[in-house]
Amino acid sequence: MDMTIGDFLLRRLRELGINHLFGVPGDYNLAFLEQVEARDDIHFIGNCNELNAAYAADGYARTRGFGCLLTTYGVGDLSALNGVAGAYAERVPVVLVSGAPPLHAILNRALLHHTLVDGNYDNVMVAVRQFTVAQARITVENATAEIDRVLLTCFRERRPVYLQLPSDLATLQVEVPGTPLALRETRSDPQQLGEVLERLQQRLAKAANPVLLVDVDVARFGLTEQVLSLIEARGLPFASMVPAKAVLDEHHPLFLGTYVGAGSAPAVRTAVEGSDCVIGLGACFADVSTGLFSQQLQADALIQLHPYSASLDGLNFNAVAVGQVLDGLITTTVKRTDTPATPAVAPAPAWQAEADSPLSQARFWTRMGSFIRSGDVIIAENGTSASGLGGLRMPAAVTYISQPLWGAIGYTLPALLGTQLAQPSRRQLLFIGDGSLQVTVQELSSLLRLNLKPIIFVINNDGYTIERLILGENSSYNDINPWRYAELPKVLDTRQRARCFTVHTEAQLEAVLNDPQGPDELLFIEVVMERMDAPDSLRRFAKLFADFDYGVRPARQGVPVN
Amino acid sequence: MDMTIGDFLLRRLRELGINHLFGVPGDYNLAFLEQVEARDDIHFIGNCNELNAAYAADGYARTRGFGCLLTTYGVGDLSALNGVAGAYAERVPVVLVSGAPPLHAILNRALLHHTLVDGNYDNVMVAVRQFTVAQARITVENATAEIDRVLLTCFRERRPVYLQLPSDLATLQVEVPGTPLALRETRSDPQQLGEVLERLQQRLAKAANPVLLVDVDVARFGLTEQVLSLIEARGLPFASMVPAKAVLDEHHPLFLGTYVGAGSAPAVRTAVEGSDCVIGLGACFADVSTGLFSQQLQADALIQLHPYSASLDGLNFNAVAVGQVLDGLITTTVKRTDTPATPAVAPAPAWQAEADSPLSQARFWTRMGSFIRSGDVIIAENGTSASGLGGLRMPAAVTYISQPLWGAIGYTLPALLGTQLAQPSRRQLLFIGDGSLQVTVQELSSLLRLNLKPIIFVINNDGYTIERLILGENSSYNDINPWRYAELPKVLDTRQRARCFTVHTEAQLEAVLNDPQGPDELLFIEVVMERMDAPDSLRRFAKLFADFDYGVRPARQGVPVN
Repeated sequence: MDMTIGDFLLRRLRELGINHLFGVPGDYNLAFLEQVEARDDIHFIGNCNELNAAYAADGYARTRGFGCLLTTYGVGDLSALNGVAGAYAERVPVVLVSGAPPLHAILNRALLHHTLVDGNYDNVMVAVRQFTVAQARITVENATAEIDRVLLTCFRERRPVYLQLPSDLATLQVEVPGTPLALRETRSDPQQLGEVLERLQQRLAKAANPVLLVDVDVARFGLTEQVLSLIEARGLPFASMVPAKAVLDEHHPLFLGTYVGAGSAPAVRTAVEGSDCVIGLGACFADVSTGLFSQQLQADALIQLHPYSASLDGLNFNAVAVGQVLDGLITTTVKRTDTPATPAVAPAPAWQAEADSPLSQARFWTRMGSFIRSGDVIIAENGTSASGLGGLRMPAAVTYISQPLWGAIGYTLPALLGTQLAQPSRRQLLFIGDGSLQVTVQELSSLLRLNLKPIIFVINNDGYTIERLILGENSSYNDINPWRYAELPKVLDTRQRARCFTVHTEAQLEAVLNDPQGPDELLFIEVVMERMDAPDSLRRFAKLFADFDYGVRPARQGVPVN
Repeated sequence: MDMTIGDFLLRRLRELGINHLFGVPGDYNLAFLEQVEARDDIHFIGNCNELNAAYAADGYARTRGFGCLLTTYGVGDLSALNGVAGAYAERVPVVLVSGAPPLHAILNRALLHHTLVDGNYDNVMVAVRQFTVAQARITVENATAEIDRVLLTCFRERRPVYLQLPSDLATLQVEVPGTPLALRETRSDPQQLGEVLERLQQRLAKAANPVLLVDVDVARFGLTEQVLSLIEARGLPFASMVPAKAVLDEHHPLFLGTYVGAGSAPAVRTAVEGSDCVIGLGACFADVSTGLFSQQLQADALIQLHPYSASLDGLNFNAVAVGQVLDGLITTTVKRTDTPATPAVAPAPAWQAEADSPLSQARFWTRMGSFIRSGDVIIAENGTSASGLGGLRMPAAVTYISQPLWGAIGYTLPALLGTQLAQPSRRQLLFIGDGSLQVTVQELSSLLRLNLKPIIFVINNDGYTIERLILGENSSYNDINPWRYAELPKVLDTRQRARCFTVHTEAQLEAVLNDPQGPDELLFIEVVMERMDAPDSLRRFAKLFADFDYGVRPARQGVPVN
């Protein structure tokens, strides 16, 4: 069976569930874009720049399964690279397709634009390789094999990959495999699997107070159902790491809360740090996930189940697939009769707006607690937003999106474009600070252009608050230029397609929240708050970081816990 | 003598003539920013994002000599990388300083935010190394040696360099050298210099019609005075390569025009391609500089003088400094008596606006020819702007800034921020297309914040015209979302500090151009033109590229001419 290389790639992207390609056109990718344009099943979403395209593909991948962006060589790839690296850090499967110069020119080391004009065609590949799990420069002879190898690696690792597609190849016909991509999780070595299950059963049988620690692998590898079954079968209390907020239902009776080392709510800390059997589902003990390495698990308590390996009892098993481990644990379960108590979730107090009170962080996030609904997609930018929302229990079936590990501010606005296109029927709320909005603001244009209707809260507290809390509270470098935020939707578009508000007081906020959102409108709300007002958790976090980054430290630091 | 590492670095940056540091604060660079804040001689210019900061540092470097930006590790460095690569391609000496995690954490391979959370601290360095000529991770023991090595390399090569500054080191005291950086050009091997000069004299003596080909090295290495002396001493006609437009006075009687291969004006083409002695001053025969490799120089005619090497008569001399060669040629000159005729520059016809005529590209650029003044800084974005301005002769003492080789659209708006700060007393004009403006628009905020007063022309022709001309004239991927461009300055700022206009007709344009610009205002002019209207040169250029990128090509392609 024959097909053009471009169409084969598009077919494989469709097999990954991708209907939208993000990116920016450039002279090396236009022929491929013509192929996209000719199809009904995959749409090109032109972004304002490539970094925003990468963020959009990331948001799409988190909610659709996989995401893809198309850039042009050099200028596009390097612009996108920060977004690709963030996807790597947070285990998000994004495919970066780069329209590269024509193969004849690459082979001749021609002095082309969008290169260093020195005949070097390795540098972009070397740079991108640092932040992807597989890469290939497509040729006619390797096209199907390399496309499949790279995309299968993306699937297997749930991390970004990179394909350079020389401009003169997309329309060439090649023989293609008739079967779809084999998107099956790698299976365990049976003997290792058996041993791990046996040891796990023993550990769980002996454990006085086992707990489960959920991290993002559970979302990325589609394990939520299995984990839930395990939790319920065994009555296992569970906590989430920061990046995995709301991956499981935060109102589940067995949910303890977010575990973040010494910064955890006391009940969570006690349960996790007092446990003799902590089953980590790919738990990653990064600085931001542990209150700067303040976790203190019991010696030998930690068991880790990674996608394809497991460690427990001081041993490392390199050929054990987590899905099979979970299945094995569920099947052979003995339900605990002494279900441990998990902290009761206090019902939120009835909200009473204090009419003319200026909005404060504490009050605003409390109000958001009752505004957020089951089924929402909630996107939380780093800074006061992530901090404030982190303190709330999300309703059931919320998808919560943030980038706490890589931590590139501005990520969330273009990510929202991705999530909106991936899951258009869900209500979507973005919370973003003023400094972060300025980083990637132009993508608001794409939301408007495509008639998308999220609710966007811009927290205007006059500058980089999180930085002010770390150092330089009054230093000019933490200032930003104030904008007329609420007028942005009117200017980054020529049709009046958004309802825009600026709120300073609780009454003003209430009026906006209670006003039913028209069906054809994006809702854009600038929330003005005091510069140095911040959630307490953020203040504490900032102080820890100031000390870690700038102070003289004890000798033994940050020993990674595997 | 003792000094903090941070202050030593700042002292060295001052020695390079840098008074402004671009960038974005992040938790790893705040202590260093405090040091900047404490000084009067160097100012931090907060940008909206790091790519824009890199572009601004590039514009600054082109007009001040050297430029510097400060980012935070990972998220900042990678965001800036596309801008750094562009500086590399176009020989612009930019210093990227990255506030890195504390050294104790790097050495412990701690799992930190802004990394891939896997203990790998090499990946960012590997990536940035691809696009810089020297790099270092600063430690206390290497600080002064490595800072000096890296900055001297930046000077020597006039290309970007990279310094990682761990957060816990900036405020530590070290012993520092008392002498300033030795910013002297490397000298030739005397024997090679002698031979090259002898051969050059012979070639020039024998040559029937020698010409000089000027490229960007002349600007970057401060050779303009010497080159002018040589030209006048010998009556040598000269042409410029595309990236070196206006490096020498385009109204000089010996100026032929821009040489761009088959796309050159006939008189230029004849002079260069008919010459038996073409002295290239680092002439780079890239695709965009040669009408896609259409140059046809006489066999053996080309002599190349690079900063530290020379090639002529089939030989390569690796130890010859161009400044000394030029001096040698000027000193031993014999002035030609038969000064060749260069094409007379026809005086521009008196401008007569056709009141209600919709603006056309041809008419607009003609009008700009009389609007641009001697001494201006002219910044030309890729696309119709660079194409239209490329067809004009710049008045004397104009600095012309574009990025034709790397070709990242959007470069010019933040670059303007850099040039404005580097040379505040000059009038500065930016010409940028709508698609390009959308890429980096937020930096308009910084221009307004700092009360800078350039004149910005936004060419609104509804999309990526240059792409439309290559492929996909009516394809949706070449569309962009229309904005209310003329309202941007009112929204990306809260004070009314700009005069904004939208012009459709010649009369409207005239009214704006003749209205004296108030001393306290940035002037922002949206120029609306037809989508498919483009300078003829751009149409031809686009067709060549469509063929090169997507067609089947002759076997022998793009052989680089050294």
